[in-house]
Amino acid sequence: MHVADRLIAVIEDKRAPVCVGLDPVLGRMPDPICREGGPLEQFRRFTLGVLRAVAPIVPVVKFQSACYERYGSGGIAILNEAITAARNLGLMIILDGKRADIAQSAQHYAAAAFDAVAQDGHPDLITVNPYLGSDGVLPFITERGDGRSVGAFVLVRTSNPSGDAIQAPLLQSGLTVAEHVASRVAEWGKVSVGSRGYSALGAVVGATKAHEGRSLRRLMPQQIILVPGYGAQGGSAEDVRSLFHDDGLGAIVTASRSVIYAPQQKGETWDQAVARAAKTFAETIRNVVQTPTSNPTTSTTPSSNPTTTTNTPTTP
Amino acid sequence: MHVADRLIAVIEDKRAPVCVGLDPVLGRMPDPICREGGPLEQFRRFTLGVLRAVAPIVPVVKFQSACYERYGSGGIAILNEAITAARNLGLMIILDGKRADIAQSAQHYAAAAFDAVAQDGHPDLITVNPYLGSDGVLPFITERGDGRSVGAFVLVRTSNPSGDAIQAPLLQSGLTVAEHVASRVAEWGKVSVGSRGYSALGAVVGATKAHEGRSLRRLMPQQIILVPGYGAQGGSAEDVRSLFHDDGLGAIVTASRSVIYAPQQKGETWDQAVARAAKTFAETIRNVVQTPTSNPTTSTTPSSNPTTTTNTPTTP
Repeated sequence: MHVADRLIAVIEDKRAPVCVGLDPVLGRMPDPICREGGPLEQFRRFTLGVLRAVAPIVPVVKFQSACYERYGSGGIAILNEAITAARNLGLMIILDGKRADIAQSAQHYAAAAFDAVAQDGHPDLITVNPYLGSDGVLPFITERGDGRSVGAFVLVRTSNPSGDAIQAPLLQSGLTVAEHVASRVAEWGKVSVGSRGYSALGAVVGATKAHEGRSLRRLMPQQIILVPGYGAQGGSAEDVRSLFHDDGLGAIVTASRSVIYAPQQKGETWDQAVARAAKTFAETIRNVVQTPTSNPTTSTTPSSNPTTTTNTPTTP
Repeated sequence: MHVADRLIAVIEDKRAPVCVGLDPVLGRMPDPICREGGPLEQFRRFTLGVLRAVAPIVPVVKFQSACYERYGSGGIAILNEAITAARNLGLMIILDGKRADIAQSAQHYAAAAFDAVAQDGHPDLITVNPYLGSDGVLPFITERGDGRSVGAFVLVRTSNPSGDAIQAPLLQSGLTVAEHVASRVAEWGKVSVGSRGYSALGAVVGATKAHEGRSLRRLMPQQIILVPGYGAQGGSAEDVRSLFHDDGLGAIVTASRSVIYAPQQKGETWDQAVARAAKTFAETIRNVVQTPTSNPTTSTTPSSNPTTTTNTPTTP
């Protein structure tokens, strides 16, 4: 099944276009976790506990690769175990690795993410960086040797203030650099479109830049937009509405710290607090998406004609 | 000692501004390696053999992280062992990881590269991507907790054809996107300049784009420029001359496949072939750099006044 079709299906199944991001940091984990075992073991129990808490509520989880990589091969082993656990819990999985390299090396990174040996589960999608152009991106949406369809979200507009220095300047074409990147992503993504009209190549657009959202949404009608920055990073639920199509599809909002470090209320265990925060988050975004927008320029959903050409590139 | 000063010192010591890149791929390793042990063990022996062969000749090696990451935690363990071995052989070490993320996550990646636990050696510099702006870059040149000075090379202009789609468009300022990025890198790098006048923040400029080299060299007088694409990727020695300052410093040329997969001549072992290819490569670049250029617009070396302000940022 095409990865974009699977993503839309799990979002519809859970009735929530949301994702919980796991970016665990030792100093911030809850007391019951910190009382037992060494740092890596604490890390492992926290990650697996969060997955169990959110799995009934959200369709997708995102692992921040940096948080695991900083513990070397031991951290990578925990990440692999967590990906397998997420798979067994029925979650779809994004590896937030922000990888980029030229053709052959990009293929190695794609293999690292999607095929690594000595690993039982693999992510479904990965985040990638557009600066090297299409040959740094397309290897990440190339069907794997065993026929699995995989996908990628390309960084288009990030939620950090210093991103403006590179993404905001105006080109002679009249587009900003980010809008130009969006137009390239829309073009590159045409090689792999599922039956629901969405491409295996999605985009990352930060929630704190939602005033630009409408323009980017129009430039990328077939992209599923991953929207980080909700919650701890400052984006509001209102900010993200413009990134969805009118039918409430086409984007997925992600929250990390506001869910995984949710403060406990009286009588709650730490993982009950995480589950409650995930429910509140899902409910908030569900309401935002269901509220009809009055803006006449809101984009329309891509053709969901089931006869849309599915042209998945094959392994070279 | 400031990382840029160390880099200039080892280049002067070996009289060769060159780097050998290790991007090993199982199918291409020499027969004597392939005859024994499983894939990971072959990978390990090849990597360590190349390091021993080139250490007497070149000052710097660069590890392509993707090639190791694709073997999961086992691959990472070999990369760690190889970095330690390179350190013990007196080589300076670049981790070619092309990382990028926003502030806190960039700090995690910097910790993954420079401080990872359960690791005896660490790289001196890493390659990073500019798309997220300064807060995705500066954590990688922040002095480590133990006082080590570390550095980064920012991707400015890459040698792959599809990089043009993002790096070549003209901004309303009259600069290309790559030139604009170069101007930002020059600015960001001012926070950490060594006594030889070079910044801890260098730049990557592909050898196959050397017709743009002069402009980028002028925009980044304090950057040490890492020049990939010599040899197998198509750049010629002539192409790279414009990226050096008149005194033969300011750039370091890297070759990977043309050295590590050097064909054996009669009576040679595979690692003797690697050593011979490394010698030829070093000699070629040495000659190119020593040939005086007749172009009057060649840039001059940055001030090497030993009283230049060294303003290394500290860990936040």
